Amino acid sequence: VPSAIVAGASGYTGALAAALLARHPRFDLVGITSRSDVGMRLSDLYPRHRVKLTLEEFNAERHGQADAAVVAYPHGAAAPVVAALREHGVRVVDLSADFRLRLVDIYEQWYVPHPHPELIGEAVYGLPELRRAQIEGADIVANPGCFPTAALLALAPLAPWLDDVVIDAKTGVSGAGRTPTATTHFVSADENVTPYGVAGHRHVTEIDQELAFLGAPIRVTFVPHLVPLDQGELVSCYCTLRKAVDVEALFARAYAHEPFVELTDRPPGVRDVRDTNFCRIHAHVDERTQKVLVFAAIDNLWKGAASQAVQNLNLMFDVEETVGLL
Amino acid sequence: VPSAIVAGASGYTGALAAALLARHPRFDLVGITSRSDVGMRLSDLYPRHRVKLTLEEFNAERHGQADAAVVAYPHGAAAPVVAALREHGVRVVDLSADFRLRLVDIYEQWYVPHPHPELIGEAVYGLPELRRAQIEGADIVANPGCFPTAALLALAPLAPWLDDVVIDAKTGVSGAGRTPTATTHFVSADENVTPYGVAGHRHVTEIDQELAFLGAPIRVTFVPHLVPLDQGELVSCYCTLRKAVDVEALFARAYAHEPFVELTDRPPGVRDVRDTNFCRIHAHVDERTQKVLVFAAIDNLWKGAASQAVQNLNLMFDVEETVGLL
Amino acid sequence: VPSAIVAGASGYTGALAAALLARHPRFDLVGITSRSDVGMRLSDLYPRHRVKLTLEEFNAERHGQADAAVVAYPHGAAAPVVAALREHGVRVVDLSADFRLRLVDIYEQWYVPHPHPELIGEAVYGLPELRRAQIEGADIVANPGCFPTAALLALAPLAPWLDDVVIDAKTGVSGAGRTPTATTHFVSADENVTPYGVAGHRHVTEIDQELAFLGAPIRVTFVPHLVPLDQGELVSCYCTLRKAVDVEALFARAYAHEPFVELTDRPPGVRDVRDTNFCRIHAHVDERTQKVLVFAAIDNLWKGAASQAVQNLNLMFDVEETVGLL
Amino acid sequence: VPSAIVAGASGYTGALAAALLARHPRFDLVGITSRSDVGMRLSDLYPRHRVKLTLEEFNAERHGQADAAVVAYPHGAAAPVVAALREHGVRVVDLSADFRLRLVDIYEQWYVPHPHPELIGEAVYGLPELRRAQIEGADIVANPGCFPTAALLALAPLAPWLDDVVIDAKTGVSGAGRTPTATTHFVSADENVTPYGVAGHRHVTEIDQELAFLGAPIRVTFVPHLVPLDQGELVSCYCTLRKAVDVEALFARAYAHEPFVELTDRPPGVRDVRDTNFCRIHAHVDERTQKVLVFAAIDNLWKGAASQAVQNLNLMFDVEETVGLL
Repeated sequence: VPSAIVAGASGYTGALAAALLARHPRFDLVGITSRSDVGMRLSDLYPRHRVKLTLEEFNAERHGQADAAVVAYPHGAAAPVVAALREHGVRVVDLSADFRLRLVDIYEQWYVPHPHPELIGEAVYGLPELRRAQIEGADIVANPGCFPTAALLALAPLAPWLDDVVIDAKTGVSGAGRTPTATTHFVSADENVTPYGVAGHRHVTEIDQELAFLGAPIRVTFVPHLVPLDQGELVSCYCTLRKAVDVEALFARAYAHEPFVELTDRPPGVRDVRDTNFCRIHAHVDERTQKVLVFAAIDNLWKGAASQAVQNLNLMFDVEETVGLL
Repeated sequence: VPSAIVAGASGYTGALAAALLARHPRFDLVGITSRSDVGMRLSDLYPRHRVKLTLEEFNAERHGQADAAVVAYPHGAAAPVVAALREHGVRVVDLSADFRLRLVDIYEQWYVPHPHPELIGEAVYGLPELRRAQIEGADIVANPGCFPTAALLALAPLAPWLDDVVIDAKTGVSGAGRTPTATTHFVSADENVTPYGVAGHRHVTEIDQELAFLGAPIRVTFVPHLVPLDQGELVSCYCTLRKAVDVEALFARAYAHEPFVELTDRPPGVRDVRDTNFCRIHAHVDERTQKVLVFAAIDNLWKGAASQAVQNLNLMFDVEETVGLL
Repeated sequence: VPSAIVAGASGYTGALAAALLARHPRFDLVGITSRSDVGMRLSDLYPRHRVKLTLEEFNAERHGQADAAVVAYPHGAAAPVVAALREHGVRVVDLSADFRLRLVDIYEQWYVPHPHPELIGEAVYGLPELRRAQIEGADIVANPGCFPTAALLALAPLAPWLDDVVIDAKTGVSGAGRTPTATTHFVSADENVTPYGVAGHRHVTEIDQELAFLGAPIRVTFVPHLVPLDQGELVSCYCTLRKAVDVEALFARAYAHEPFVELTDRPPGVRDVRDTNFCRIHAHVDERTQKVLVFAAIDNLWKGAASQAVQNLNLMFDVEETVGLL
Repeated sequence: VPSAIVAGASGYTGALAAALLARHPRFDLVGITSRSDVGMRLSDLYPRHRVKLTLEEFNAERHGQADAAVVAYPHGAAAPVVAALREHGVRVVDLSADFRLRLVDIYEQWYVPHPHPELIGEAVYGLPELRRAQIEGADIVANPGCFPTAALLALAPLAPWLDDVVIDAKTGVSGAGRTPTATTHFVSADENVTPYGVAGHRHVTEIDQELAFLGAPIRVTFVPHLVPLDQGELVSCYCTLRKAVDVEALFARAYAHEPFVELTDRPPGVRDVRDTNFCRIHAHVDERTQKVLVFAAIDNLWKGAASQAVQNLNLMFDVEETVGLL
């Protein structure tokens, strides 16, 4: 059984990754690290997860003994940890944005100076439904952002014909992270809906990049909205195609054998995927305008982050893809 | 002081109209009717509104004595009440869809056989910011739907240049009415976001009709989403224009003197208009795609229904537009 | 592997019991029944649960072949189903109130005429922490109500010394069941807290009965409150004792070896037990008044119903108690 | 028209007091101060309140020109501001705890060293329903805490007979103030109920003090709980009386002429008093235990703070008590 660590386990996604690995029958969770809560038991921070391990300071020597790692540090802080783990041969799934973008200058335009540009080439974009084979052989898997996960699953079957795409996304407050801010204050978020990132959300380049790989060299319009729930994310995609296609058939074919994608008869609600690794998708042609509408629902902390990381680890370590996730 | 009645005061919007008129200094609320709760005091159904009047059965003779009426019956049921009130000379604001659409066949395609098509010509579409002068002289004012209210205020300044529009709307659960259903059950709506009306929502024709009047002969794509809050509505509009325009200047000019429209520096949240007649709007050009993004927030029960009805009554009865609404 | 059925699987608790048994490694879920949704796949009603079985009409012959059953019908309707299953030798956990009360006249005072009073004597009250040995040998286990589960776990260690007890309970809306009503309408429950059952809630006799067995022949004061969340229940118990005791030691001793009871340093929040079979308890002596305050948090659908049923089945079928529940 | 200022208008309660005074027909709001947001317009912080004044630094000379002041600083920081305003003759309603307790040593035991103990004697405890006459003549009115407001209104009619009282309170998150913390994070508060202040909440001495004045020299047991809503507070009081009394008659008599107290047939929900100065109360004798149960619902920001301050100002300045509050 391969041993695994989670670096950065005190945030929402790292803690969930630790919880999933702690009860995973094919990985052995041997260490968890934190920058802010060293010495605490994870079960004190997240009682529901019931992970009794104690948060440690990251130590490349010690944690480098593991076979597998999930890194859940913020962008910029993640790359050095990934680099240190790679030096010791650990195979890594990184939840940050540090290795998602192929072009370092695009990364640096949206984020910070890249601490380890030399590793970008080694990384594989970790959306299993699109890049399963590459992920299996990868040593660094860049786990997709939550919005790109849902948006790309919604758009991939249509990619060759996409002409124009508007993505209106709605996300629960856990997407804003664990640090208390004016935005995440209950009294601000409750009974509210607010668009944000209007001037340009970082996830948009990630979507563009992957759509280009899929044959759609376009720039999408993307606006996320904060809605009053804790976990869950819906993307509503409004697509103009370059020609009429059999939408239903395209989606049926694309996802016929995917264990974690469900096509639904009606638009999905985010409740239906809560605490799961599933993505539920509904595609529909608007008869009045001929636009293709695609709705995809995921749990932002699960398929949008932690459980997708486990799905990637399963692929990397030759474990059946659904183990630990059903 | 003109006397007023509210016909259909046991639903959310009728009850709120009654509450607003009960404390309005320039109208005298003399009667409220209901089909389901005759004999109850409105304050028993809605303690917060503190309207001590008793719900009566509608009686054309008695209620026809009033000067003004707000009718809040469902579509199909409203038109006969409006007709009866008109026979007695009452000037009416109708919250239903019965007199919003100019063309009877379009109405009948989306709703039911029209009970009083002969009255359609008399009705004015009651969006004060667009049709103030007509409303002042009207005897039947068709109060706009909640989504059209927000969408039209968001789009009107851009109408002459609109080429393609996607409207992604988010609404609180009060928009679904007071009748308990599987959809409005707390356990269904809580922690959920769900698109609905995907196959065609009735409000779309209302938006198309009014945009055509404003010079935009287009068909919009419109999808509402149910979000877990009680009151509040946000429309996110993604517009392709036929030419580049000075968006900021257009909105500034359009709404410079509007008492209930506020232009904001950032996208508005629905909390900021809760329990008010205000519409807050933010327009923004997406530099990457040249799409114009417009976000408009209203309270669906207020500006989207009851307080807009009072705004219309103020105009019709030569009362200053903001009285009773600040 | 014993085969199991769930009779009444279309309600919240029956559906969850089916979901837990469907993925249980030591039971084989072979059938699910419903009175209202025959012919539907359970996964269409509850996508998250992913139970692909189809709801059938209850059939004593067919469903009587199973080794185990969870019955989740309403009180009055459950007893006949339990009786029919018992005739075929099925061992049953019943989620209704039909077999919880030892005295038929007390049952009939709070509920309905009892359809099968002759079976009451066979039933064991299924709170594993208090009656583990009896449950192991029982053929009918009456699963406790959600409030009694939390209240009895909170009070049991103090029972011999209890003089007076006030139980103030708070429960999420799923406790009111799946049928849409005025009370469960999102707009009624949202942003609200409401006491109910003030004139006497049925669960109070269940609490009194079991406290009497534990040595506290008292009448508790019990008031539940509806709070705006979907799952979760907190009971706050205010106890006057007949003498001073070492509260901390009593609780530590009582629950030292319980797999599903956690004693906490601070009052527990219901989030911390969401979607688990755990009960978290905090006891505290109020220095000003010498009252003993005990707070217990459970998930009303899990430990308060469906997962406790599985815990009981584990005991009855000699499966380790925690299997399928961690 | 008397001029008024609000010192500390950037918090929830101060901002609401400013909003109420800004639209009050009998006061003239001339200034608002803040320690943290000097230079901002209040309408930028709280768009819904639409108060266009700019937040200033507190200046005793300038703000001392006002006739009336609401002070909404934290305890310890409020007293010096009150003292400075008093020196200039301003009549003050103080929302902090600084002048609520009659005994300086009790204040200092629960709070901080008192900066102006010499002013305590001048202050009147500002619960209008209990001390109307004193408030009218007072120069310093100590506005009650939110919990004491509801609890005292619930208990006052029974005070002479009270033997033992348990108060279980539930409050929305706005009660925790505007500063973002782990507790007020949406993801912590949502879908949660948590008791707090178990080791002793400051409001308990305030309740004890006032009950003693009313003839009940007892120590109450008091535990507040955080529930997932923004505004609203319910206290559930469980009372043992020294003798049987006619509860209904006592409450009817006590509140027959109170403009802001409503006695209800059923336990009140907090939604029914949202955004109002009303307190809704239901009293009930539990036949099984002879305990008297009293439930009182208020809006913690309104009757529990800001609107009660305005009610007090009305009394102090000989304005009809309900002006600006209906």
